[in-house]
Amino acid sequence: MGIIYKKLDVAQLTKDNTVFVTITRFAKLFNLPKDKTFIVPSGEMVKSLYYAKKLCNFLIKKNITRQGAIVAIGGGTVGDLSGFVASVYLRGIDLILVPTTLLAQIDSSIGGKTAINYKGIKNIIGSFYPAKQIIVDFSLLHTLNNKELINGYGELVKYTLLNQEIDQLYKYDEYFNAPLIQKCIEYKDLIVSSDYYDHSLRRNLSLGHTIGHAIEKCYNIPHGRAVLYGLYYELMISSYLGYLNSTDLAWARKRILDISPIPKLHNIKNLVSLMQYDKKNNFDSINFVLFIGNFSTKEISLSYEEVTKILQCL
Amino acid sequence: MGIIYKKLDVAQLTKDNTVFVTITRFAKLFNLPKDKTFIVPSGEMVKSLYYAKKLCNFLIKKNITRQGAIVAIGGGTVGDLSGFVASVYLRGIDLILVPTTLLAQIDSSIGGKTAINYKGIKNIIGSFYPAKQIIVDFSLLHTLNNKELINGYGELVKYTLLNQEIDQLYKYDEYFNAPLIQKCIEYKDLIVSSDYYDHSLRRNLSLGHTIGHAIEKCYNIPHGRAVLYGLYYELMISSYLGYLNSTDLAWARKRILDISPIPKLHNIKNLVSLMQYDKKNNFDSINFVLFIGNFSTKEISLSYEEVTKILQCL
Repeated sequence: MGIIYKKLDVAQLTKDNTVFVTITRFAKLFNLPKDKTFIVPSGEMVKSLYYAKKLCNFLIKKNITRQGAIVAIGGGTVGDLSGFVASVYLRGIDLILVPTTLLAQIDSSIGGKTAINYKGIKNIIGSFYPAKQIIVDFSLLHTLNNKELINGYGELVKYTLLNQEIDQLYKYDEYFNAPLIQKCIEYKDLIVSSDYYDHSLRRNLSLGHTIGHAIEKCYNIPHGRAVLYGLYYELMISSYLGYLNSTDLAWARKRILDISPIPKLHNIKNLVSLMQYDKKNNFDSINFVLFIGNFSTKEISLSYEEVTKILQCL
Repeated sequence: MGIIYKKLDVAQLTKDNTVFVTITRFAKLFNLPKDKTFIVPSGEMVKSLYYAKKLCNFLIKKNITRQGAIVAIGGGTVGDLSGFVASVYLRGIDLILVPTTLLAQIDSSIGGKTAINYKGIKNIIGSFYPAKQIIVDFSLLHTLNNKELINGYGELVKYTLLNQEIDQLYKYDEYFNAPLIQKCIEYKDLIVSSDYYDHSLRRNLSLGHTIGHAIEKCYNIPHGRAVLYGLYYELMISSYLGYLNSTDLAWARKRILDISPIPKLHNIKNLVSLMQYDKKNNFDSINFVLFIGNFSTKEISLSYEEVTKILQCL
């Protein structure tokens, strides 16, 4: 997998046997060739079988062969849809990712996970399919509004809990920090290359995600913000169970609350039932990766009843 | 990938978090547990998005987790559907293949290619996903009728053209030949393990398939028989282009004609247009792997017009 830090050069990527997948805004901004560009709407709805089929139809219509490629210019949802289709069209064609959001640059574009949602279950259909190239253009982050930037903060804070060097680079009031972004990418790339299929070390990266994915679905909020809330409640569980001391809890809570207030959870039964689809689970329990202080984690398993009870107490 | 030669023991495979995919005949024959068995019809129609979705729905309903497995008992189509779904459900769960036809035992179960058809194009959506285990039970071949056995002969004859040891074991009138089947499996496994992603050596195995796949689709006949016809016409192309001498042509033709008469091709324009979707192609030409005698092959590229002209001359 090649990660390249450079300014996006669309002309260089415009080739025969290659199509672009992006949103209207970038198609206009970069003046992408109309007959080679598949436009998708923004947001989670593109991670669907409906758009996967539409993109396949487009590839067929454009006679894209096994030597072909998809260039995905966009955030995590554009990358996820493009990656999944690239992985199954003709059993796999090349994928070039150009992540345009903070979330996609530091997290979703790295590590080869692709997925679409199905039957209301997030990421239930997908593949491990590494991009051939990831082009990280920091200047693209200037195109983001504040809400979109904040959406990257869930994952950013997660990294600061997991890695001391990232923690040291982190400053809340200076979120346009290229060395910090690059360090996050290198950190994730290192973890992924030692555990591509998510059996051991990579599972640490799902900190905040067990509750986060359920929150995202249950309250219909963006992934990054849901991860921020998920991180918060998983910290509280870790503390409740005695794995996290009060000093570390206070430190980590402050980091989250500096970014956003955290809403109280409601509809807890529904939330817990959504957690059962988490891919880490096995049968009738829910697996959590919990922060235990000192850049360390612990994986634990709780029954549905235990999770419900704890969340009701918080 | 573990290939095991043994009698199928269904009780051993019946576990929590595991489902069977099979046809009615085997569900009855092996008395498979009803609530864990997804029944599909026989034939190419199961290699569709419709059945892929239905199988996903079944896995969701049965709460199959990432540690779960699909056991596919059947021919190539059952294996292809099951393998594709196993590769994308929760980004991949275990796949155990129990091939029940000669074709599936010697060819389709080995090598991790999975696929479904879409928009009338064969195998256009799929993945490279190796089975965790392949259980080869020779006694299952007794369940086949003559038509089903013949359907394995296209691939079997292909192997005899490619490998001398297989050629020496081959006897047309004794098609229940366990050492021959085992040798074919070992040969394919060896090729695949040296070129899993089909970039070089594995392409030899597509002998007969460029025309074969188009014949299969155009005339709606079973894969194995279409490969036999495809082999025949690709031999004729090889001879027409001067790559195959008349002695080798006569030897290879006889081997095919001993099994089945070969129908004359009609609707050649339609046939050639179907070949454009062959995964080996790039743009406006069609790639063929041709037999050139002495267990050897040569890969060539012909324009649509050339292919049409040659087929009209044969």
